[in-house]
Amino acid sequence: MKFELITSAQNDAVKHLVKLRDRRHRDREKLTLLEGYRELTRAEEYGMTLSECFFSPRHFLGTNEFPLLERLAAKGVRVRELAPHLLEKVSYRDRPEGLLAIAGMKTHTLDDIPVDPRGLYLVAETVEKPGNLGSMLRSADAVNATGVILCEKGTDIYNPNVIRASTGALFSVPLAETDNASAMAWLRKNNIKILAATPHTDLCYTDADLTCGVALAVGAEQTGLTDFWMDGADMKVVIPMLGKIDSLNVATATTLLLYEAVRQRGFPRAGERA
Amino acid sequence: MKFELITSAQNDAVKHLVKLRDRRHRDREKLTLLEGYRELTRAEEYGMTLSECFFSPRHFLGTNEFPLLERLAAKGVRVRELAPHLLEKVSYRDRPEGLLAIAGMKTHTLDDIPVDPRGLYLVAETVEKPGNLGSMLRSADAVNATGVILCEKGTDIYNPNVIRASTGALFSVPLAETDNASAMAWLRKNNIKILAATPHTDLCYTDADLTCGVALAVGAEQTGLTDFWMDGADMKVVIPMLGKIDSLNVATATTLLLYEAVRQRGFPRAGERA
Repeated sequence: MKFELITSAQNDAVKHLVKLRDRRHRDREKLTLLEGYRELTRAEEYGMTLSECFFSPRHFLGTNEFPLLERLAAKGVRVRELAPHLLEKVSYRDRPEGLLAIAGMKTHTLDDIPVDPRGLYLVAETVEKPGNLGSMLRSADAVNATGVILCEKGTDIYNPNVIRASTGALFSVPLAETDNASAMAWLRKNNIKILAATPHTDLCYTDADLTCGVALAVGAEQTGLTDFWMDGADMKVVIPMLGKIDSLNVATATTLLLYEAVRQRGFPRAGERA
Repeated sequence: MKFELITSAQNDAVKHLVKLRDRRHRDREKLTLLEGYRELTRAEEYGMTLSECFFSPRHFLGTNEFPLLERLAAKGVRVRELAPHLLEKVSYRDRPEGLLAIAGMKTHTLDDIPVDPRGLYLVAETVEKPGNLGSMLRSADAVNATGVILCEKGTDIYNPNVIRASTGALFSVPLAETDNASAMAWLRKNNIKILAATPHTDLCYTDADLTCGVALAVGAEQTGLTDFWMDGADMKVVIPMLGKIDSLNVATATTLLLYEAVRQRGFPRAGERA
């Protein structure tokens, strides 16, 4: 298949890509940017609506890129080649992989979260750093979490750095964006216990029973969970800090809690996995 | 105490600070930059040699900064105030906290690592991203690891982003920089078992015995451990991936392994901690 080649920075498509680097433009147009082979395949696999795709073969890392482009074009995605300097101009990565797409943003509500009385949920309140949120989604996928509920919006979930740090898990994990009160009401209604991580308790996270339906609640990087969740929690646990520093990164702490829940439930054998 | 105020970008100290943002200059002068209250206090506490310190009160977040500056000045550190725009110019942070220091780099060798037949060590081979290395040091501190051995140099450990992501753990954790062969010889001589994390095994990390003296070996972000460590490992374990994505971030995986070792050994009660 032969694709149109864009060589001028004055081309409307290039100008549009540059605009989409700005959150206000993404929000206004309900569009975001995806970059790299892994993100694009994941987005395609999970039914994100890709509208346009751009590539620069000189930047490709492997040989799977052209088949992906052919598949996208066959689905009706407009695919065009960018001169290498233009791809570098519009890329948000240090080392571009030569693939960039424009995708429509989805709205994520509590109706998107499966109800499972034995489920494992993550509640993240106002997480602010895109890298942390992406990393938390990656870990939620890694343990096959039932759902992730983001409360009191922190970072924009369609920030390209969230998508990147999630390595595509943004598209695979059931996700809701909502407010604190709605999230807690939903958890209560579905008999999901709420576990809050805090330094101010003696119960070690490995001594809490995480085999019931449970939502692990974690808070903002600087300030932790608000009183809303601390007061509403059914259990409070601490991750012991044995050295000199006083806290772990929020994504790291989240991963420890998620994996502890799966350890207690028993890791499925290879053949039993999703 | 009254400190000298610098208001001109042409001041030699300002020019020097700008130069030190460049790794080549830091390496040549064996100096690095520290920024923020937490890093500076940690560096002071663990005996880093601070030569000069700069501050801008308008950026201070709290009220502990002046006492710290007085302490440093009393120890002979040259302390000067920067006009706010100059502090912003030389800061490497998005949100400067108004404190910046120049510190001498230490050399870290295997002689700096305590020998403990029941110890918990981390071996990191060619970790490339400063944020990951810093995060791994933070987790190593959090479990009070016996030592961290960095093999086949990846990122510069005195990169300001390593110091920042480590939240100061760079100064608290016993650290060596060496080559693969020396590291393995040291571990063998001291009867420390080597555990390699890899997707290519069936042994779940929670089923391996991590209560012996053990070194957890992890590799570069993109390529994992080299054959040198895979072939030399006494145990190989997998962190199960239950969702769609195929790997965790290296710092996240490291933290899971370190905390699993501590869980198996029994978390010390609050009163027994270091």
